[in-house]
Amino acid sequence: MSEFDLINQYFKTASVKRKDVVLGIGDDCALLSPPPGKQLAVSTDTLISGVHFPENTKPEDIGYKSLAVNLSDLAAMGAEPAWVSLAISLPEVNETWLEGFMSGFSELAQQYNVSLIGGDTTRGPLSVTVSITGFVSAGAALRRDAAKAGDYIYVTGSLGDARLGLEAILNNTVIDNDVQFCINRLNRPEARVLAGRLLSELTDITAIDISDGLLADLSHICEASKTGASIELQSLPLSTQLRRVYQQQPEWEKVLSAGDDYELCFCCSPGQESAVLETFKAHDIVLNKIGVITESKGIQCVQADGSLLEIDHQGYNHFQSE
Amino acid sequence: MSEFDLINQYFKTASVKRKDVVLGIGDDCALLSPPPGKQLAVSTDTLISGVHFPENTKPEDIGYKSLAVNLSDLAAMGAEPAWVSLAISLPEVNETWLEGFMSGFSELAQQYNVSLIGGDTTRGPLSVTVSITGFVSAGAALRRDAAKAGDYIYVTGSLGDARLGLEAILNNTVIDNDVQFCINRLNRPEARVLAGRLLSELTDITAIDISDGLLADLSHICEASKTGASIELQSLPLSTQLRRVYQQQPEWEKVLSAGDDYELCFCCSPGQESAVLETFKAHDIVLNKIGVITESKGIQCVQADGSLLEIDHQGYNHFQSE
Repeated sequence: MSEFDLINQYFKTASVKRKDVVLGIGDDCALLSPPPGKQLAVSTDTLISGVHFPENTKPEDIGYKSLAVNLSDLAAMGAEPAWVSLAISLPEVNETWLEGFMSGFSELAQQYNVSLIGGDTTRGPLSVTVSITGFVSAGAALRRDAAKAGDYIYVTGSLGDARLGLEAILNNTVIDNDVQFCINRLNRPEARVLAGRLLSELTDITAIDISDGLLADLSHICEASKTGASIELQSLPLSTQLRRVYQQQPEWEKVLSAGDDYELCFCCSPGQESAVLETFKAHDIVLNKIGVITESKGIQCVQADGSLLEIDHQGYNHFQSE
Repeated sequence: MSEFDLINQYFKTASVKRKDVVLGIGDDCALLSPPPGKQLAVSTDTLISGVHFPENTKPEDIGYKSLAVNLSDLAAMGAEPAWVSLAISLPEVNETWLEGFMSGFSELAQQYNVSLIGGDTTRGPLSVTVSITGFVSAGAALRRDAAKAGDYIYVTGSLGDARLGLEAILNNTVIDNDVQFCINRLNRPEARVLAGRLLSELTDITAIDISDGLLADLSHICEASKTGASIELQSLPLSTQLRRVYQQQPEWEKVLSAGDDYELCFCCSPGQESAVLETFKAHDIVLNKIGVITESKGIQCVQADGSLLEIDHQGYNHFQSE
C-alpha cells in the first residue's frame, strides 16, 4: 500500500467536517477560513516512542494522547480547538496499528470538533508530531507572564496519577483498580479545554498546563512573570486512588515533579477569586487552591509543620539525565 | 543545557519579527492575527535522517531544506509564506548542530519573512517536522483538481538535478563543478514561491510541486482532475550541468521519477497561455511546456521518434521498496 493510499484511507475518513475547512487533506496544502476578528492559538508537540510513552503503549492510546497533549496547550491559552495536522513516522506499514491509532485520535477529535487538515506519513522510528490551531478573542488568551505577587494559585483535578501509572508499567507492578485508574490518567489525559475557555472569559488570570510537573510549570509562570511562589503541600490535590496506593504518605517530590497529568495551573487576583469559584462550581470542575504568588523569587514548598521541603529535581526534562 | 534554554537560545533569537505574531515562542501557544478576508494555506512535512537526506548532510543544509520543502507546498498553492512551527528530534544535545541547523533555516526564513512561532525539541532519532502557514485570497489558491483536457502542461526550472546529486553522494562519485551544482540543488532547493503567487493571480491554473518526481506528481493532478496527460520527453527541461554529466543521453526514467527538485508543474488553458508566458518573462522565471492534458487516463511519455516510453517506476514512495 502506498503512502498516499494510507493517507486517503485512514486520515481522510477520520476527519471531522467543519465549515471553515475550505479544502482538507489531499492537496499540497489545506485551505482554511479563520473566523473574523479572532486570534489563532497554535501549538506543536512531538511524542516519541520510549521517551514520551512506553514502547508497549497501545496505538489507540498513542492516538488519543497525541491529540490530548496538544488540546491541553490550547486549554492553557483558553482557546477553542479547531484544526490539527498530524505527522507520523512509522518503521513499517502496519494497518492494524494505524487503525488503532486513528480510532483513539478520532474519538477525541470528534469530541472537540477538531478537523484533521493534513500531515505527513514517513518511514522511520515511531514518533508523532501534532500541530493544533484554536481560536481565541483578541486580548482574552491566558498567558503565563501576568502573575502578580498576592495572586492565588489554583490547580484543576489531581496531581501525580499519571506518574504513578507510568511507574507501575515500567516496574511491572500488580495492577489493581487504583493503579489502573492511574494508568488511564497516563494514557488518556483529559485536556482542560472547558476550564481554559471559562478562565479566558475572566480577567487577571495567568495559566499554564502541567505537562512537566507542577514545580517545573509553575516556575515557568514565575520566570515569565518575574515573581516567586509559595505552595502548601497539604493543599496539593491527590486522587483517592493515589492516596490509597501511597497509604496516606504522599511522596511529595514525586507529586511535585509528576508530568503528564495535563491539569491546569493558574493564578488569579484575590478580587477575581469569587468569580473563578462560582464559574468552576457551575461547571462542576474540581479546583484546589494550593498557594500564593510571592515577590521573592523561587518556589517555596511549605510542609504541614511549617518547615520547607528541600527539592532537587524540578520536573521532567527530555534533555537532562534523570 | 535544558530543553527550555535551547529553545530560548536558538529559536527565539532566530525568529523573524512580524506584526501579525501577537505572541511568539515561549508560552503554551503562539498567538497570531490572520489578515482579514484571506484564507490560510497550511502544510506539514517531515524529514528523517537517512530517508529524506543522507546521514552525513550538513546541519545547515538540513535546516535550509526542511523549510524549503514546506515553502514549496505553499508555492504550489500560490500562497504567501507567513508562519512556521518546527519540531526537532535529536539524539543528544548538540549546540554546534543546532547552530548550524538554525543558520540554514534562518537564512531562508529571513528571505521569505517567515516567523518561527513555536515548536518542540525532543530526544530521539534525528528528524525534523515543519508546519507552515501562508495566506491566499479566497478562490485564488492553485488546486490540483482543476485540469481539463487540452490544458498545456508546464514546468519551471529543470528536472533531475537533485537526484543526480543524491546518487553522487551515495555512490561517492568524483565531485566536479557539474555534480556540485546538482548536490546544491538537492540540499538547497529553491521553492518556487514567486512563480506560485504569480500563477494564483491568473485563472484556469492547476498546480503541484514536484517533490516525488514529475510522473508521480503529475499523476496526482490527473487523478484529482480525472484526466490523463501526454508529455514529450524531448521537451523536459534539463540543466546544462545535467546534460554534461549525462553526455547528452538523458536517462529518461530517472528524470521522470526524480524527486527533490521542488519545481512547479502546472496546467493552464490555451486561452491563458499568453498571460502565463508574459508574466513569467517579466519576472525572468525559466518555464518549459512539456505536454498536454488528455481525456484518456494515464500518462503517456512520447519519445523523439514518436514511440512511447514504457515506465515501471512512477516516483519515490517512502513506504514502497524501491
